[in-house]
Order: sequence, then structure tokens, then C-alpha cells
Amino acid sequence: MDRSDVTIRIREAMRTKGYRFADIADHLGLDKTWTTAALLGQHPFTADRARHVARLLELPDEAVAVLQEIPARGSLESVPPTDPTMYRIYEAMQVYGTTIKALINEDFGDGIMSAINFSLSVDREDTDQGSRVRITLDGAFLPFRAPEEW
Amino acid sequence: MDRSDVTIRIREAMRTKGYRFADIADHLGLDKTWTTAALLGQHPFTADRARHVARLLELPDEAVAVLQEIPARGSLESVPPTDPTMYRIYEAMQVYGTTIKALINEDFGDGIMSAINFSLSVDREDTDQGSRVRITLDGAFLPFRAPEEW
Amino acid sequence: MDRSDVTIRIREAMRTKGYRFADIADHLGLDKTWTTAALLGQHPFTADRARHVARLLELPDEAVAVLQEIPARGSLESVPPTDPTMYRIYEAMQVYGTTIKALINEDFGDGIMSAINFSLSVDREDTDQGSRVRITLDGAFLPFRAPEEW
Amino acid sequence: MDRSDVTIRIREAMRTKGYRFADIADHLGLDKTWTTAALLGQHPFTADRARHVARLLELPDEAVAVLQEIPARGSLESVPPTDPTMYRIYEAMQVYGTTIKALINEDFGDGIMSAINFSLSVDREDTDQGSRVRITLDGAFLPFRAPEEW
Amino acid sequence: MDRSDVTIRIREAMRTKGYRFADIADHLGLDKTWTTAALLGQHPFTADRARHVARLLELPDEAVAVLQEIPARGSLESVPPTDPTMYRIYEAMQVYGTTIKALINEDFGDGIMSAINFSLSVDREDTDQGSRVRITLDGAFLPFRAPEEW
Amino acid sequence: MDRSDVTIRIREAMRTKGYRFADIADHLGLDKTWTTAALLGQHPFTADRARHVARLLELPDEAVAVLQEIPARGSLESVPPTDPTMYRIYEAMQVYGTTIKALINEDFGDGIMSAINFSLSVDREDTDQGSRVRITLDGAFLPFRAPEEW
Amino acid sequence: MDRSDVTIRIREAMRTKGYRFADIADHLGLDKTWTTAALLGQHPFTADRARHVARLLELPDEAVAVLQEIPARGSLESVPPTDPTMYRIYEAMQVYGTTIKALINEDFGDGIMSAINFSLSVDREDTDQGSRVRITLDGAFLPFRAPEEW
Amino acid sequence: MDRSDVTIRIREAMRTKGYRFADIADHLGLDKTWTTAALLGQHPFTADRARHVARLLELPDEAVAVLQEIPARGSLESVPPTDPTMYRIYEAMQVYGTTIKALINEDFGDGIMSAINFSLSVDREDTDQGSRVRITLDGAFLPFRAPEEW
Amino acid sequence: MDRSDVTIRIREAMRTKGYRFADIADHLGLDKTWTTAALLGQHPFTADRARHVARLLELPDEAVAVLQEIPARGSLESVPPTDPTMYRIYEAMQVYGTTIKALINEDFGDGIMSAINFSLSVDREDTDQGSRVRITLDGAFLPFRAPEEW
Amino acid sequence: MDRSDVTIRIREAMRTKGYRFADIADHLGLDKTWTTAALLGQHPFTADRARHVARLLELPDEAVAVLQEIPARGSLESVPPTDPTMYRIYEAMQVYGTTIKALINEDFGDGIMSAINFSLSVDREDTDQGSRVRITLDGAFLPFRAPEEW
Repeated sequence: MDRSDVTIRIREAMRTKGYRFADIADHLGLDKTWTTAALLGQHPFTADRARHVARLLELPDEAVAVLQEIPARGSLESVPPTDPTMYRIYEAMQVYGTTIKALINEDFGDGIMSAINFSLSVDREDTDQGSRVRITLDGAFLPFRAPEEW
Repeated sequence: MDRSDVTIRIREAMRTKGYRFADIADHLGLDKTWTTAALLGQHPFTADRARHVARLLELPDEAVAVLQEIPARGSLESVPPTDPTMYRIYEAMQVYGTTIKALINEDFGDGIMSAINFSLSVDREDTDQGSRVRITLDGAFLPFRAPEEW
Repeated sequence: MDRSDVTIRIREAMRTKGYRFADIADHLGLDKTWTTAALLGQHPFTADRARHVARLLELPDEAVAVLQEIPARGSLESVPPTDPTMYRIYEAMQVYGTTIKALINEDFGDGIMSAINFSLSVDREDTDQGSRVRITLDGAFLPFRAPEEW
Repeated sequence: MDRSDVTIRIREAMRTKGYRFADIADHLGLDKTWTTAALLGQHPFTADRARHVARLLELPDEAVAVLQEIPARGSLESVPPTDPTMYRIYEAMQVYGTTIKALINEDFGDGIMSAINFSLSVDREDTDQGSRVRITLDGAFLPFRAPEEW
Repeated sequence: MDRSDVTIRIREAMRTKGYRFADIADHLGLDKTWTTAALLGQHPFTADRARHVARLLELPDEAVAVLQEIPARGSLESVPPTDPTMYRIYEAMQVYGTTIKALINEDFGDGIMSAINFSLSVDREDTDQGSRVRITLDGAFLPFRAPEEW
Repeated sequence: MDRSDVTIRIREAMRTKGYRFADIADHLGLDKTWTTAALLGQHPFTADRARHVARLLELPDEAVAVLQEIPARGSLESVPPTDPTMYRIYEAMQVYGTTIKALINEDFGDGIMSAINFSLSVDREDTDQGSRVRITLDGAFLPFRAPEEW
Repeated sequence: MDRSDVTIRIREAMRTKGYRFADIADHLGLDKTWTTAALLGQHPFTADRARHVARLLELPDEAVAVLQEIPARGSLESVPPTDPTMYRIYEAMQVYGTTIKALINEDFGDGIMSAINFSLSVDREDTDQGSRVRITLDGAFLPFRAPEEW
Repeated sequence: MDRSDVTIRIREAMRTKGYRFADIADHLGLDKTWTTAALLGQHPFTADRARHVARLLELPDEAVAVLQEIPARGSLESVPPTDPTMYRIYEAMQVYGTTIKALINEDFGDGIMSAINFSLSVDREDTDQGSRVRITLDGAFLPFRAPEEW
Repeated sequence: MDRSDVTIRIREAMRTKGYRFADIADHLGLDKTWTTAALLGQHPFTADRARHVARLLELPDEAVAVLQEIPARGSLESVPPTDPTMYRIYEAMQVYGTTIKALINEDFGDGIMSAINFSLSVDREDTDQGSRVRITLDGAFLPFRAPEEW
Repeated sequence: MDRSDVTIRIREAMRTKGYRFADIADHLGLDKTWTTAALLGQHPFTADRARHVARLLELPDEAVAVLQEIPARGSLESVPPTDPTMYRIYEAMQVYGTTIKALINEDFGDGIMSAINFSLSVDREDTDQGSRVRITLDGAFLPFRAPEEW
């Protein structure tokens, strides 16, 4: 039983029991996005939370240990993703990639937005002209090490 | 003279004149991110604005027409991008791609975040623990057409 | 049991029972193309229709839930597709891709044909010089968001 | 001077003279889509029409011969195309490719829609809910040769 | 049981029973090359012939239906093929591809050799200097549709 | 001046002078297909023939030496080729590749059709049902070396 | 049971019985390199030798027929190979590929070293400065067919 | 002027002056294969030899310095190479790659044939049955470092 | 049971028994990094150590032989790796690859750092500004063979 | 003039003036590896240092501004690199990639070695058994953000 087997079991259990990702996050008292990513195999759970998840979804015992392991991350089967919902994120990166670099460099200097000291949220806003999806990427700015420090 | 030639000229002029993207956006009275993307060849300018940009950066006359053309979009030379600043966006998509789809589907139903009826911003937040980069993707939710409408 | 397992079962049941895609669409009272796409794993069914399909094709109970899930879309095993029937669509895109963009931009301005607010049909026309296949792509025009709205 | 040089000249001349593709098609008395594709380097012109195009757009003499050559077809710089307008065609093929094959096979038998004995149109429809793009692919059905004919 | 399973069964049965492709073609009274391609999963059989093949090779009942389905064509596991016998065909296409196009265009005008209204044969010729393989591709010429017909 | 420069010059001269590949082959007294391939940069000319070609097409002196060099062969810009005329050869290889191997192995034993001791022709046949293209690949059979000879 | 299954069985049997490839070649009275390649699925055995191999390694009966089949050749899982021992061969080809072509052309004229009428050996030489690996590729020279023979 | 420019000049000078690679190697008193590889941009020359080469081929002064630089190695424009002469080396690696690894491991233990402490030769052997090409790769055996040495 | 099966068993046993890679290295009295690589399928164990590992982790008997086999090396499922921890190594190579070559060439002359006569370590340093990871690659310098030795 | 033009000028000037990378680093009073990477286009210089470099190497004025720009990083023309010196770094990553992840995770917990807060050195060690290259990667450990912080 590896991490992807556990992910399949999780989705089956959610289907059977009628749980949404938000429900499980509530049960764990954790951020909804982080929890979704972790359930989809992108973050490890602590021992307590792994047991909690397993109990909630009636996963087999072996899954408790697997959920605690640090996974080999990467969730896309192909790049660019063929699924339209995921492709639009890719398209934004294609169209605005150099813009994002230019503005980070202009506002912060030479460095990057960390994708590790990082969080992400997906929010819904309902407006007169329909609903909007708002995805926020929030990462620490990391400057390149100055040559004096080498 | 094609669009990428104009982009090179723009960057040279900005270097010579000491303009930042934010300065040009101010001059035009337009959003900074949109303006940066347009200057980097991802959006067309209206005739007035194209003339304004050309005057500001002393671009040759031919550039005025080129800036009004709808470009063939896509700003990355390779995917995944080798530049660390741009790669981190790619990495976020790799790690959180299925999460984003799961949450959009859970909160909105079957559909996508539009990358066309869409805007993006790059913001800076200074905290006790250092500066943070905040990238916001804001797109209309588009539901898949129901079979009754086919 | 995942979505591709269900697709295999559907095709086996259609073979055994002698159903065509058009027959199932008739049974459901839905568009033939949408129904075919949904049966091939590209669209979710509502709960009622999922039960209807399962009953019609004698699929196992578990399939009813799977058919309601929003699938990870994308139907081609390789691109370009090696199968001649599917390749011709790819060839049309290769030869006429820039033409389509040029005409959409010329007639509508800067924007796209939505592939979400979208439907597609495959029709047959019998002429003196043989039969013709007519494929129609019908999508909402989405203009790029103007900079004033950013 | 090769075919892509001529295409660049054509676009520059159209920009300078303010011609649209539809205008040139009118001048030639030919289908707008075919003419656009031919001007973008995907079809050869007859000698008369090549001269007509060259006169209209004040192309150099050498272009007249080049426009008559049968081109090496294929208009996309990369697949999938990074430009959103062209990508949506690709996406439709990705999501509906197996559907199109299934319906052609079901309605016509074993064979293909020709992309040679073929025409394509891009049309605009204005509705209460906004404009729609309608792309029609119209190709002869070609059955696979029966084994008796081998 | 899908088409590739049936192909594996066919090859096992041929091995056990000592049948060659030519023998099966004789039994069916069909062209040897077409029959080989069909047995290898590239063409569908009619119902009668499918039953004939299944009886001859003692295939399970389910195979009879599978053999009648129109397959998703494409027989190569990788391109270029690593197997030397198949690679030489690829090499001929690499070296003579532009030559073939030039001569078809010169002799027939703008169009293609159909690969659908098409047959292929592999023949042996024994000469003083050893045996020679002769592969013949025979396809209808299809002219591109003239703009007047669009 | 390298081989591809010479090819471009040859095509320009043919256009200007109105020569067809068949005409040049006639002038040289050589096979039409071989000559076309050689003019397109896939075979070297002997010194005499190189001078003959250069005189006929008024190529610069330097071209005479270049035409005698053994070229780095391979004529396709991309695989699969995007041009429909060349793609059909690729498609035939995709659909019939395993068939060709099976029949060569069945009729000749373990070995290949040489693509070196090899010739190719493109012929036209006019029938009641239209013209047909016939492409013949004719190569020596080369058996794999037996282990006794290792 | 296909050829790769048989290869796995062969390696397991060699491990259990303590056979080296050289031992099996001795038993068969055949070249060591040829035998290794054949055992690894790159050459067919005659009926007698297939039985001999099966007896020696206690392979199941079915393997005897499989070993006689002409395999689809190609032994590398990826190119370039990730394994350092195999990569060095690739590296030699990368660095010396054009050199080898230049010298074959200079010494033999226009043609190739056959990889079919071909043998290969891997030898060990022990010198004062350590052991050396000597790999010899020995293939018939095949001249390109002269145009007079087309 | 970079290394590939120098290579082009070298080939032009060889053509003009009628030098073969073997002639230049003789002039330098160096191995023919090494010299060919160096002239084709895969090895640096010492200062003396660089001057010698430049004098012999009347290269411009700047080339003398360029020839002494350690090049970025790798001579193939694409992999697999499309040229038949170079492809056969690739094919040998594809078919015999695992065999070579198996025999090196069996005869020498865990390690590789060095491609650095390495030489290569291309030889001609004339036999009753025609000429044969013999390519010899000769590299030091390098054992993997034992864990005790880590 | 092949090498990757054994790796899966090892990781399961480590999870169950609570062993770290460092613990197993201690048990074996071997370098921690080498041992980790070997347990992950990149190095063979001697017979004694294979038995030791199997006993420690209660692996089945068959694993003892498998652990002694020289593996086909290469540990990454895709390149670039999608996992952030592994990607950073790739990024360092992308950004500093030419730098490393320039400095090796400048300090040592023409040659390479061996990746065979090689060891690697991953160390932790705790500083006032947080922990640092130090990865050291230590390989013998191998000079390219001089032409005099060819 | 873009960054890669400046890099070419730098290498030409170094060749002409006989500077090594170490010499320039000395002149600037900066780390040798950082300076080499910056000169090869991977890091920006401050204004003072850019002027210093330009003076030292007699670069044109325009280069001073270019050297201060934050470059689009990534130094490899292809991956895997074909040059043997650079390939060995790639090979180490291929063979030890999962090992490095396993040890970082085991010693530090869930996180990465930063490639931004990072330095690298290439050192020489001369031993009895020849010279050794030591490459050290030194990066801050960055833990993944805990879910409580999301």
C-alpha cells in the first residue's frame, strides 16, 4: 500500500460517506486547502492527525503509517494538464510568468517567492456578474545570497 | 519589426531612462500588472495608449502599430521554466493542481476559473518575519454547459 | 473502480446489449454528443441520470457514484493521436489554427471561443458526391478583461 | 524569400493599409476562411490570384512566385499552442476526440472525415446572452478500403 | 478483454497451432496484408469473419465481438521504432519524405495520397544478388478542395 | 554555404527557370526519384553531375563542391510531419508497421529490408475512380548474422 | 507469457543456479555476446537451442516457443540510459558520432556500417595501469545504391 | 567566432584544398580518429597544434585561440540521429545496451567503461564477402567506489 | 521479485520497525549515504551484507539474492523531478552547470569529476540563522586521454 | 545587446587578455564561484562591480547596464547535458536523488535545501591517488509551512 493507494481509498470513502474536503478539514480543525492537498497525497500528517483521518474515513491500519510519510510531491499526470480546470492555472503561468518575475524583481529585488514557506487558498466571491474564483499564493520572499556571504 | 522586437526595445528604453514598470503604469493610469504583461507582449494596447507608450519610451513609429496587434500569447521559453523565480509558480501548480480542481469543484460545481475574464496581481507584504509575496489570481467561474443547452 | 473502469464496462455492456450511443441518449432524453462524451468519461451525470445509465447497462452499484464525479478530463492517449479518424481533427487544428485565431480576433476583438460554455455536434450530410461529416464547435465569445477592470 | 517571409510582409502591409482578411477575400471574390489560411501560408494561390494579392498589398515581385508554391503545411509553433484562443480548439479535441471518433464510426461506419476534401468556417452569432463563435469543419467521409479491394 | 488482449491470444494460438498469417488469410479468402493488419488490431472484421477467425484459432466467445469493433489504430510502441525492421521504414520516410511530397505535388498537383482509400503489400523478389523486399503503398490521390467549393 | 543553402538556391532557380524535378532528371539521364532526393539534399552528386546541375540551374561555383559532399541525411523538420502529404506516409507506418515486420519475418526470416541497398519510386495510375499514387520501396533483404558467424 | 516474462525467468534461474552468461554460451557452444543478447530478448533461438536453454534453466514449456519468436528489438528503457555503464556508450556516440561518419565516408565512400550483418564483442585487457574494456563493433559496409541502379 | 564557426571554416578549407582528415592527422603526427574528433569540435588542441592546424588550413588568427579552448562536447544535432550512418551506432546501443552492461558486470564486477580515459578507432577490413567496418571502443574499467572508502 | 519490489519491502519494514536509514547503516557499520543509496536500489550489497539487511528487516529469502545484483541505476521517475526537495538539486545544476565545468577546466585542465570513483554526503549544520544542508560531491578527477595515447 | 551577448564578449576578452575566472574574482574581491556564475550570466552585478568588470575586460558601455539586470537563469542548453563534465553532475542527481531526499527528510524533517539562500564551491584536493574534485552545495534548510500557519 503506497501513498496513491491511500488517496484512492480516501476518495472512495469520501464518496461513500458523503464527506467533502471542507468537512474533513473541519473535523481536523485545519486549513481547508492544506487538508485537501494532504489528503490528495502532497503533505504528510502528524501521527495524531493520521489516526484521526483513518478513523473518520475507516481506512485500514496500514494507512495510518503511510499518511505520516513525507510524500514524493507532484500531483499532475501530464504537463500541460489536459483537464480544463487545471489547465487554466497553467495558462495563467504561461501568459503572466515573465510578468510575475518582472514585478517580484522590481518590488523586492533579486530573489523568489518561496513555494515552501508558502500557503495557498481558493476562495469564492459572488458578485452581480456571477461568481468569481480567487486563488491566492502567499510565499516568503527569499533573496539570493549575496556574494559576500559565499 | 514584430512583437518580440518591440519588447526588447521597451526593456532597453526602460534601462536607459530608468523607468520601472510601475512608472509606466502610472503614466498610463492603468493597473501595474496588466501594464507589465502588455509591455512584455501579452496584451494589445489601444491606439491612444500605444502612442503614449511609444512617446514615453521613444519607440520608433512602426512600434505604435505593432503594440495594437493582438499578440500570440505565451511568455515562457521552456516549460518547466529554468529560472527559479518563475519555476516556483510552476511548482505550486504541480503540488497544488489537483487540490485547486478539487476545491473549485467542491465549492462551485463543475466548471473552471476563467483565465480570460481574469486579472492577476503581485503584492508585497512586510511582516516581522520578513517580506512576503502575494500573488492573486482572480477569474470568473464558468460552469460547463448543461446537456439541456446542447 | 475508477472512471476508466466504468467506461470499459459501459462499452462492454453496449456491445453485449447492442446499444448505440444514440440509443442511450434517446433513453435519457439528452443530446447525443453530450451523452457520448459523458459515457466516455468526459462529463459527470446527475444522480438520477447516473442511476438511469446504470440500470440500462446493468452496471454495478458502485458505478452510480463514480458516474456522478467530476472527471479529470482529457480523452486522448497520445498527441498527436495515432488513430486516423482522430488525427484529422488534429490536422485541421495544425493547418487552420492561426486562421481561426485571426478570424476570431478580426470579427470579435481580443478574446477566445469558450470551450466550457460550449457544445459540439457531429452531423451527417448525404450529397451526390458522397456523405460528408460536419463537426460544429459552438462556444461563447469571452473577451479578455479590459485593464480598467483589473 | 520563403513562404514565412511573405506571410510577414502580408501582415505588415495589412497593418499599414488597414486591410482586414475579409477585405482581401472580397477583393479576390473567394471564401474568407480559405483566403485567410492561404495568406497565412497554408494554401497556394493560382498565378492570377497571386498577382492580385501582390498588387493589392504591394508585395515585391518575387512574392508572386512564392505564393503559387504548394507550402509545407502546419501553422502552430508549438503543440499544445500556448495562445489561449488557439488552445481552446486543442482542448475541444482533447475532451471530445474519442467522442467524435465514436459518433463518426456509429453514423458512417469505419472511416474518417477527410481534412483534404474539407472546408472550415468561423462564424459569429449574436444572442441575448452575448456573442457566440461557431466553427464548422466540413469534410467528406472516406471509408477504409474493404479487404476485397486490396 | 480489449483488442490488445485479443491480439496476444491470436499470437499465442498461431504459435501453438503453427499457423502463419498467410494461412489465416487463405482460410478467410482475404488479402494477406489486410488480414495480418486486422489480426494485429488495426482493422475490424465483419461478424462472419470474426466468427471464422475465432473458430480457427479457438478464441473465447468474447473475442468475436471485440474483433468486430473499430479499433483505435496505431501499432507502434514508440517513434522512432527501436526494432531495426520497423525502423528502416521510418528511415525511408525521414530521408525521402520531402522527395515524396515534391513528386506527388509535381505529378498530381496540390493534394495527398490517401492512407484510407489505401492498400499496402509486402512482396518478395528473388534475384541473382539475393532476395529483395518490395513494399507498395497504393492510395487514392485526394486534391485539396478548391476555394470555389468552400 | 552549406547543403541547405544550396537546396534553397536550387528551388529558387527551378521556380525562376520553370524546371520540374523530372526535367532535371531527364537532363542528367538519371532516375527521377533519386534526382529529386539528391536535389533536396539527401544524396551526393558525382563531380560531373554536380557541375551539370550547377550549370543547368546557374548555381554559384561554390555549390559544385557542396553538391559532392556526403550529406547528413534526414529531410523532416518535425516528426510526425505536420504537412498532410508527408503525414500520410507516417500514418501508414503507424498503422501497418507491425504488419510489415510480421510479413517480412514470415516470408524471409529474421532480418530487415535495407534502406541503403534501396530505391523508391512514386508513380501515378489513372483509373476510372480517379488517380492513384503508388509508392514502392524496394530494398535488399538483409538477414541478421547467425551466431556461428560471430 | 511474452518475451520479457521469459527474460525475467531466465535471470531468476541464473541467480538461483549460479550460471553466468558465459556458462550458458559454453553449454550452447555459441558466441558469448550473441548468447547474452539472445537471452536478454534481442535474438531468437532455433528450436533446438531454445529447448536446450529451457532444459538448462528449467524454464516452463511455453518458453520454448517464445524463445524461437523473432523479438521486437530494443533493450533500453529510456534514452539516454540513466544507468552509468550504459550511458558511457551513449556518451561515446554523442562525442564521436560525427567523427565516425566522417571516417566511414572518407575511407569507404557513401554508405553505412550495417548493424544487421554485424557482430559485437566485449573484451577485457589487463594492463599495468589497470583493466580496460574493449568493445568492438564489426559490421559489413553497405554502399548507398547508385542512381544507375534505381 | 565560436567553435562551430571554426568547424565550418575547417570543412570549407578541407574542401578547397582537397585535404582528408587522415592527411591533417599525418601532418600533425597524431592519431587519425582523435584528430578528426578535435577538428569536428570535440577536443581542444595544444597551442602548437592549434597554430599548425591554422597554418595548414589558412584559418584566421582568431581561430588559433578558439581551437585551444575546451569545448562543450556533444556532436549530434538530434537523438536518435536521422542520418543512417550515425543511426546504426545508435541502433547497436539500443539492441546491445543491456548486453554490454551484463558482460561488463560479469567480467569486471560493478563499474563502467570510462568514456574519458578512452580512445576509439574506425578501421577497414576487406574480405572476400566485401568490406567491413570495425569500430573499437577502448576505455579503462572504473569500479564503483566501495562503501568502505566513502 | 525485482529490485524495485525489494525497495518497497524495505521501506515497509523500516516503517513497521521504526528504523531510520542511519540505524541500518550503523548496524552494517557502513557509510550512511552509501547505505541509503543501496537500500533505495542504487548499489549492490555483498552476500554477507545482503543477508544482514534481510535479517534486520525480515525480508524474504529471495531478496538476499536480489540485493546482490548490480542494479540498473537511476532513481528519478521524471526529469526535472516534480518533488521540491529533489528539484533544488536539479536547479543548482541548471544555474551552476556551466560554472562547475568552467572551474573544473580552469583548475584541473580538460577532464571530468568522476561519478563512479565518487562519494556523496548530506550533512547538517546548525547556525544562528537556522539549519543548513550541506551536500558534498567528491569524485576523482579524470583527464581526457591525450592523443599520444590513442 | 542582451545577457548572452555580454557573456560571449566576456569570454572573448578573457581569451585575449589571458584572464582566468579566478583572476577576475580576485580583482573584484569576491568569491570565485559566485563570480564565475555571474560572468556566465547567472547573477546580476551591482553598479560598481559591473563598471569594474567592464573596465577590466574593456566591454562596451552598454554592457554595464546589462550586467546589472537580473537575468533569466538557467545555463544548460539541453538536459541531460551532452558535455561529459556537466553530465556527471546530472548522473549524480539521477543516482542519488532519492537518497538526498531521504536523508534530508530523515535529518531535518519535511522541507528542502534552499537553492536561493545557497552557495556552491568547487575545490581541488591532491591526494596520493590523484586529484579529486569536491563540489559543495550549501543551502538553508526550509521547512514546509505547518498547516497551523496557513
